[in-house]
Amino acid sequence: PDTGAIAAAEARNGQLTKPPGALGRLEELAIWYAGWRGDPRPSLEAPQIVVFAGNHGIAARGVSAFPADVTVQMVANFEAGGAAINQLARAYGATMGVVALELDQPTADFTAGPAMSEAEAVAALGAGWEAVDPAADLFIAGEMGIANTTAAAAIAAALCGGRGVDWAGRGTGVDAAGLELKAAVIDAGLAANAGALAGQPLEVLRCLGGREIAAIAGAIAAARSHRIPVILDGFIATSAAAVLHAAAPGALDHALAGHRSAESAHGRLLDHLGLSPLLDLDMRLGEGTGAAMALGVLRGAVACHSGMATFAEAGVSDG
Amino acid sequence: PDTGAIAAAEARNGQLTKPPGALGRLEELAIWYAGWRGDPRPSLEAPQIVVFAGNHGIAARGVSAFPADVTVQMVANFEAGGAAINQLARAYGATMGVVALELDQPTADFTAGPAMSEAEAVAALGAGWEAVDPAADLFIAGEMGIANTTAAAAIAAALCGGRGVDWAGRGTGVDAAGLELKAAVIDAGLAANAGALAGQPLEVLRCLGGREIAAIAGAIAAARSHRIPVILDGFIATSAAAVLHAAAPGALDHALAGHRSAESAHGRLLDHLGLSPLLDLDMRLGEGTGAAMALGVLRGAVACHSGMATFAEAGVSDG
Repeated sequence: PDTGAIAAAEARNGQLTKPPGALGRLEELAIWYAGWRGDPRPSLEAPQIVVFAGNHGIAARGVSAFPADVTVQMVANFEAGGAAINQLARAYGATMGVVALELDQPTADFTAGPAMSEAEAVAALGAGWEAVDPAADLFIAGEMGIANTTAAAAIAAALCGGRGVDWAGRGTGVDAAGLELKAAVIDAGLAANAGALAGQPLEVLRCLGGREIAAIAGAIAAARSHRIPVILDGFIATSAAAVLHAAAPGALDHALAGHRSAESAHGRLLDHLGLSPLLDLDMRLGEGTGAAMALGVLRGAVACHSGMATFAEAGVSDG
Repeated sequence: PDTGAIAAAEARNGQLTKPPGALGRLEELAIWYAGWRGDPRPSLEAPQIVVFAGNHGIAARGVSAFPADVTVQMVANFEAGGAAINQLARAYGATMGVVALELDQPTADFTAGPAMSEAEAVAALGAGWEAVDPAADLFIAGEMGIANTTAAAAIAAALCGGRGVDWAGRGTGVDAAGLELKAAVIDAGLAANAGALAGQPLEVLRCLGGREIAAIAGAIAAARSHRIPVILDGFIATSAAAVLHAAAPGALDHALAGHRSAESAHGRLLDHLGLSPLLDLDMRLGEGTGAAMALGVLRGAVACHSGMATFAEAGVSDG
């Protein structure tokens, strides 16, 4: 971030017509945003949302409450404008794109070995990187992929420790038996790929992830290179971010945790990353929807910071 | 609320292209809003924000970190568009009005008797009632009034029990000595008006409130009569709401707690009212700003509910 812009934004914040600190977290948000945009009085006019979709070999193991066909059906719903994320993109003035990653070729079942070849993982990372518009002033990555909470949980276990039972959650709504099955599938994936996983974050991504998760990691890294701040969505997007965090300290300094998902392991993963979520609305849909809600908050924060009058401008006594 | 609209909104919610419950609190918000608007697929197009301003006799006791002149200065700032609430009204598409209530005539110092005469209290309630646009589809009352956290704390103590020390907070930023003074002023107000206060919520409002607090109570009641849902702001707006709650059970069924203020007593007052705040952003500015942030969230909730495709419309398998 631009330390000069941060200092100038902090100075401006201190002169605005309000008691010091009275806008609370909105003040921190605006200053963080100013730093990454390199502008002490920034605007937020071109937020970009991209939903990445992928299919997973482990879906065939029955780890989701929905059939794998739903991934491609929901891609059509995104393209037609009918999904939740489409409504939120419109409500908060963001562009919305969909990148479907070889949906007719699911990743391999990771309980039998790596989910992706090196070439496949690199292609997915690159697709994510290319999807970020350098002219955007905020980026949100959403995801769609039946069975991808299982992949995200496996990544979290490999990066943070613990077993399947510690990271498996209800996803789109599995029952107790489904939850047990998810935990077992995760443990099998960790065992089958044990040789490749130790200490290698990108190998964790390749062996346990999906194409959409790799694409999100690529997109978050690309946004950093363009100085575009990122809002992280839920458990799956955060698992992609956790790979970057493990690979390079500070890799998420340009990223804000948009919300705490109702998916049980998300809060624990955010704690591991040292991120404090902005919202807690009991959401667990994915698609980027939690991050989009946080975009609504960020818009307000930036509007206050950049639009308010100073004490001097307004002729108000500053206490 | 319209129970038919609620049932129809619940049925629609169950058909939207998402796992059941995956939008969490957004689903509850949309159904609540549909019920009060009497429309199972409502729109939110005409939210109204009104900031009520009043001056307080107790300001002369030094209970605020800012001089009393700031009330009228901030009214000019609202009218010029320079305050935080102006930026948020613009960001979330609300109209914004200001009602200044006889600023050159502060209420009486309540440590010596009632803050308002009956005629003054009725006039302030009526000004609030009249300020609500019957064509609005959501209403937010903000406030400005140097010393009004002290008035709000006195009201809370009279309605909920406890002493000044239990309800006094930092307000715009008083120090420890200022906090002690606030508590003492509240206790003196409770003692001076003890005869009038017992079991009479509107007498609590008259004896301890300010004109802007009475106006907010009037506006919340008027919104109810027009079936306009309300988002409550922080401690002061909630103290006005608490008067209505004490006077008539269910009087706040059309009201949502927008946020939990950093003003320490606000969370306790919300608990007393059985309200669970939507946001917790460490804000303590008033003006309606916390409620306006929640308006941003409500906009997203209503957009999802009314704009999303159903499983049948989108051709998506529903699990």
